[in-house]
Order: sequence, then C-alpha cells, then structure tokens
Amino acid sequence: MTSYVSHTSVDCGDAYALALFWSDVLGYRELPDEPLRAGDDECLIVDPGSGHQILFIEVPEPKSVKNRIHFDLRPREGTRAAELERRLELGATQVADHRGQCGPGTGWVILADPEGNEFCILRSEAESNAG
Amino acid sequence: MTSYVSHTSVDCGDAYALALFWSDVLGYRELPDEPLRAGDDECLIVDPGSGHQILFIEVPEPKSVKNRIHFDLRPREGTRAAELERRLELGATQVADHRGQCGPGTGWVILADPEGNEFCILRSEAESNAG
Repeated sequence: MTSYVSHTSVDCGDAYALALFWSDVLGYRELPDEPLRAGDDECLIVDPGSGHQILFIEVPEPKSVKNRIHFDLRPREGTRAAELERRLELGATQVADHRGQCGPGTGWVILADPEGNEFCILRSEAESNAG
Repeated sequence: MTSYVSHTSVDCGDAYALALFWSDVLGYRELPDEPLRAGDDECLIVDPGSGHQILFIEVPEPKSVKNRIHFDLRPREGTRAAELERRLELGATQVADHRGQCGPGTGWVILADPEGNEFCILRSEAESNAG
C-alpha cells in the first residue's frame, strides 16, 4: 500500500504572484475550473504534460531559514546559461554558483524566487550528453 | 523557454534512512545504477511510473521551523484512515488532524516523517468520488 504525490505545496506571502512566477519558469498552467486570480490565498498550477501540480498557499509567517526542500530544474531546451539569464530578468536572484565544481560544464546555480525560495538550475540533458 | 523539475531535493540528517522511509510511503525505487547504500550522504529514489525523483541530501544543520514546501499525498488504493495507520506504524508522527473541516469526509491529516518533515494525507480518489 503506497500513496502518490497529489501536489507539492509551497507556503508563501503572495500566492498569485508566486504562481505566475513559477508558471513562467516551468510552463505550468492554471486548471480550467480553478483559474488563477489576484488576491486568492491559494493558487494551483499544473504541468500539462506530467500532471504534476504545485499549490501556493498564503501563510502569515515569512520565510526565515533556508528551505529544506527545493526543486532542481533542467532547461527543456537551450542552455543553463540562457535559462539562468532569463530567470534573473524575471525576478529571481542568484544565491550561489556551483558551476564547474566537478569539472568543466558540471555543477549548478542556486537561485531564489521572488520570496526567497531556493531552487537550482542544472545543465539541460542536451548539454550533459554533449559532455 | 521553460525548465522541468529534474528532482525534488530534501535536506536531512540521515539520507539513507529517509530514502527508505519515503520509498515505502510512495513506492519509489532506487535507480539501477545508483543503489541505496547506508552511509551515503546522498540517496536518490524514483517513481517507476512518472519518473519523479526525490534526492535526500545530508546537511549539517537540523530542521528548525515548519517546512515551507511539503508533499500532499493520496493513497493509491484503500482509505485515508488505513494509510494514516500504516504511516504511524512505520515511523511517522501525527502533527494535526484537519479531517472533516469542510464537511464529512473532507480535509486532511498532517504527519511528519522521522526527521520532522511535514506531509499531508488526503482521501483517495475513490473516497473523494464516493462523496
């Protein structure tokens, strides 16, 4: 007997703003019967491919320490460098740069979303396969 | 241009123990070329169905506040009550009980894994569909 992950929940201060940011990062969409609305204290987005869902839930307390759970991302196309540049333009901040720490082209960059939630960007599969 | 979630990372004190706990909860497996080994400071498990991966990474600092990111689970079969009982037997602890707060059969139970990471158990789809 096992369970499956119905959705991953993210505590936040502005559910709508964070849902828009992450929809852009991941290409997720609103559900047809649960449209994203400014001011809602819960906002759900879904991956049209896998069905993976993320639920943003407003909470009173602000983020105070490094999150113990985070997403590690790979660009669907293009390069880690281009994806990094795009995320920084759209409101992310860079936390640390661990590129190349295991040799040329390896490693990752740690970013934070507009509320400070850490996430990592790895190389795309095409980049990794190219060595 | 978007990215996809390659894996979700979980900071922890004992990567092997937590990987075993969550493998049992979710029915995830080790990767053939990355077997789970006691003592390893990183342990990766994967959903044989969706390919979703969780990476447990040992960190020096203990958990200090409620996690801002958590998983919400649904039993693949059976009931929320049976799943709850099984998880409590296997090392989870109950944090809060929000069952029935929106009417009979609704709501969820908040549990914590052996390191205190919160997760929720919702009703199975069959239970929800039964009303």
